[in-house]
Amino acid sequence: MVQYSTPRLDASFAALSDVTRRGVLEQLGRSDASITELADKFHMTLTGMKKHVSVLEEAGLVTTQKVGRVRTCRLGALALEDEMAWLEKYRRLWEARFAALDEIVEELTLKEKIHGRKKHK
Amino acid sequence: MVQYSTPRLDASFAALSDVTRRGVLEQLGRSDASITELADKFHMTLTGMKKHVSVLEEAGLVTTQKVGRVRTCRLGALALEDEMAWLEKYRRLWEARFAALDEIVEELTLKEKIHGRKKHK
Repeated sequence: MVQYSTPRLDASFAALSDVTRRGVLEQLGRSDASITELADKFHMTLTGMKKHVSVLEEAGLVTTQKVGRVRTCRLGALALEDEMAWLEKYRRLWEARFAALDEIVEELTLKEKIHGRKKHK
Repeated sequence: MVQYSTPRLDASFAALSDVTRRGVLEQLGRSDASITELADKFHMTLTGMKKHVSVLEEAGLVTTQKVGRVRTCRLGALALEDEMAWLEKYRRLWEARFAALDEIVEELTLKEKIHGRKKHK
């Protein structure tokens, strides 16, 4: 089984578990923005937005730079590839598991039919 | 922009933000298991494992069924496709953003070179 950096996946999935933080990432995918601009855009207080940005920053998804009184946010170096790889691996497991269950159900249905025919004879 | 069911993405990403819960999903991808078996496997108390399983259950990632005194866990109907779609969309944004930044850097480097040459003349 592939090993991923566990604390990183914990932090990045936690960072993604909030609709505003996902929105901030999408926004920064279009252009860099200051904390104030992000707070306005998402109808939040500066304090609330600062908290979201610091969660994203700790997860490595965003970097910030303060010039004068303005803190500019941009996307970090993480393209969420390990997270994607985990989800892909899970989907393969999930599909195999459901295919196996389907087979069992089919087998049971077939047995039922054979059994049913015998009873009717 | 594609719209996803927001509370669902919040719940599923939160469910994935813990290494034990990801491990439980991988385990159930191989075979169904009781809470007791999962607790043993992950060296946890029954109470701790019950909490993890209920987070997974609330996110729709696991279903459980109690027969007698044994509660069996199996994978739920969610294959995490929306979560995967979100990550794919993000990766496209991320790549476009970094390609744009690369272009700016190249342009600046080129300007620098031309400027440098002029200065040396």
